[in-house]
Amino acid sequence: MEISELGEFGLIRRLTEQMQPQNETTRRGVGDDCAVIAPTEGMQTLVTTDMLMEGVHFDLTYVPLHYLGYKSVMVNLSDIYAMNAKPRQITVSLAISKRFNVEMMEELYEGMRQACEEHHVDIVGGDTTSSLTGLAISITAIGEARPEDIVFRNGAHETDLICVSGDLGAAYMGLQLLEREKAVYNQQWANAQRSGNPQEMERLKDVQPDFAGHEYILERQMKPQARRDIVEALAEAGIRPTSMIDISDGLSSELIHLCTQSHTGCRIYEERIPLDYQTASMAEELNMNVTTCALNGGEDYELLFTVPLTDNERVEQVKDVHIIGYITKESLGRTLICRDGVEMELKAQGWNPLKEKE
Amino acid sequence: MEISELGEFGLIRRLTEQMQPQNETTRRGVGDDCAVIAPTEGMQTLVTTDMLMEGVHFDLTYVPLHYLGYKSVMVNLSDIYAMNAKPRQITVSLAISKRFNVEMMEELYEGMRQACEEHHVDIVGGDTTSSLTGLAISITAIGEARPEDIVFRNGAHETDLICVSGDLGAAYMGLQLLEREKAVYNQQWANAQRSGNPQEMERLKDVQPDFAGHEYILERQMKPQARRDIVEALAEAGIRPTSMIDISDGLSSELIHLCTQSHTGCRIYEERIPLDYQTASMAEELNMNVTTCALNGGEDYELLFTVPLTDNERVEQVKDVHIIGYITKESLGRTLICRDGVEMELKAQGWNPLKEKE
Repeated sequence: MEISELGEFGLIRRLTEQMQPQNETTRRGVGDDCAVIAPTEGMQTLVTTDMLMEGVHFDLTYVPLHYLGYKSVMVNLSDIYAMNAKPRQITVSLAISKRFNVEMMEELYEGMRQACEEHHVDIVGGDTTSSLTGLAISITAIGEARPEDIVFRNGAHETDLICVSGDLGAAYMGLQLLEREKAVYNQQWANAQRSGNPQEMERLKDVQPDFAGHEYILERQMKPQARRDIVEALAEAGIRPTSMIDISDGLSSELIHLCTQSHTGCRIYEERIPLDYQTASMAEELNMNVTTCALNGGEDYELLFTVPLTDNERVEQVKDVHIIGYITKESLGRTLICRDGVEMELKAQGWNPLKEKE
Repeated sequence: MEISELGEFGLIRRLTEQMQPQNETTRRGVGDDCAVIAPTEGMQTLVTTDMLMEGVHFDLTYVPLHYLGYKSVMVNLSDIYAMNAKPRQITVSLAISKRFNVEMMEELYEGMRQACEEHHVDIVGGDTTSSLTGLAISITAIGEARPEDIVFRNGAHETDLICVSGDLGAAYMGLQLLEREKAVYNQQWANAQRSGNPQEMERLKDVQPDFAGHEYILERQMKPQARRDIVEALAEAGIRPTSMIDISDGLSSELIHLCTQSHTGCRIYEERIPLDYQTASMAEELNMNVTTCALNGGEDYELLFTVPLTDNERVEQVKDVHIIGYITKESLGRTLICRDGVEMELKAQGWNPLKEKE
């Protein structure tokens, strides 16, 4: 169905009519000039926002809209968890070009709804409009925490342990795999066209790339998980991080943010950086250095945080958390100690959304 | 300066470094994973968001970036006032194509900052990224009000008076004027090119359209004002509207929203719809019906609200507020009584951002 048949208000009704608020803080959702939220007494409000542009942040030739919706919510929830807080609401703004229809928007929304349900988050508002080209998604997430629980980027101290959840570099390897398969397919298609081979073109239409053995890195790229479980596990273990950030642009870049804002240096150990087997194997296949991928790959949405040295034993007990180094005086710089003992300065080479493409 | 020279974080620093929070509820602004807001005790939080796309919502051939920034903030603040609340913070997300440079983004931000300062609002966060084509602006505004003060769309009752602030249709007339001048200029330019007349082309480069006598409608289009003054004047007069909405898509469309959500009908009088002289004169010049423009023009950002009949005398004392009709039973429909006494059904013919262009 064409979106123009429904109009803005019809589309919003269609997308949001099934939604029931899950949070008692949500007093009014979609349907007025504003959403209304009743903050829990004694809590502060956290706000974060992210904008995803087609052709820059996502490629719909290989990302199903359902996954795109899911991921676009998760990346925002991840920012709330990175403050040691709980997400409660989101608003969703969409700008849609003519090539999208109502069913496609429903698929996108279905993914958003799934992410929200998993994290007990309400979609309370948004804006739906048209764009001349492509799809633009802008999400704002709102969360809550007690003031004393909120963790900033600037609280790391000398001797604090540097911890990271999960494993790194997998989302980036998943992206490389998808890009490679897309390039291979486009080449085959171009060849079939050039040689005027209609049977081959017909065959190619049904071809699905074989991703066996790469499921984990694909899932990490397409369906990242915001680490509420880590925030909860730390709270249960009685650990309050001194600083925290989520890893969206790569470990190096995020660790440099923590150090800069905390006025510290750091030392991390290459051998301690958590990697999955599929990440390492894909890196080898693509002739890339797996540590470089883990340091600069981005889109992991794991949590990077520091804890006091005295929490050493407690943090070692927390599942899926890895100590990768420690915080130093600022004057000592930011250092990666390689497997062979060579020391290198950490540099932010993560993804820069405003850098010109080569 | 090229934006790629600064990168995302450099650009954000450059745009936001002069900003000092004006609100005591703002506990942490730009620079962490989230902004932190401390809600005022006993108040609820209002959230609204709007997305503006180049080529759909604005045309940079005639809108200076400073005005665009100002307006993109105002339209969001207007939604907060429409809930009878006060705006406190906004987040700003920008997606920027390569044709924009740092100075252009500074101009855009300068307009945003001006709007924020006038309304004591803090810019507390956002996202800055690239787009393949054009500029996209997504703003989320956050406000506060005591729960008992918040006014929804659904509270209108039979016999309530329908009121509107300011005057209507002017912003739409301003847009028509700008579009006309653009068309005239493009035609002159095409003629000069076709006839190979370099002197004429040189002359045209410096031509500025003469907008004398149209200042008001241009200002209404380019620099709309969110009506905090009306919200404050109503509070001072001891009037709490029973329902309220801001007029972004035209009086008809917004009044129908109020009636639908309140399950009422309405009767409004054509002769009571407030019009400015410049609006009427431009409509005549363009051979358009001025009432149609006021009903369906949009972008006025005036407040449309209902008050109990018993507030008649009090509301008549409030400066710049006009009573245009009253609320009826739902079964009586939504009626416009024309100057000649003819009754017409109100229809929502306001701007539909998702409608196909003819």
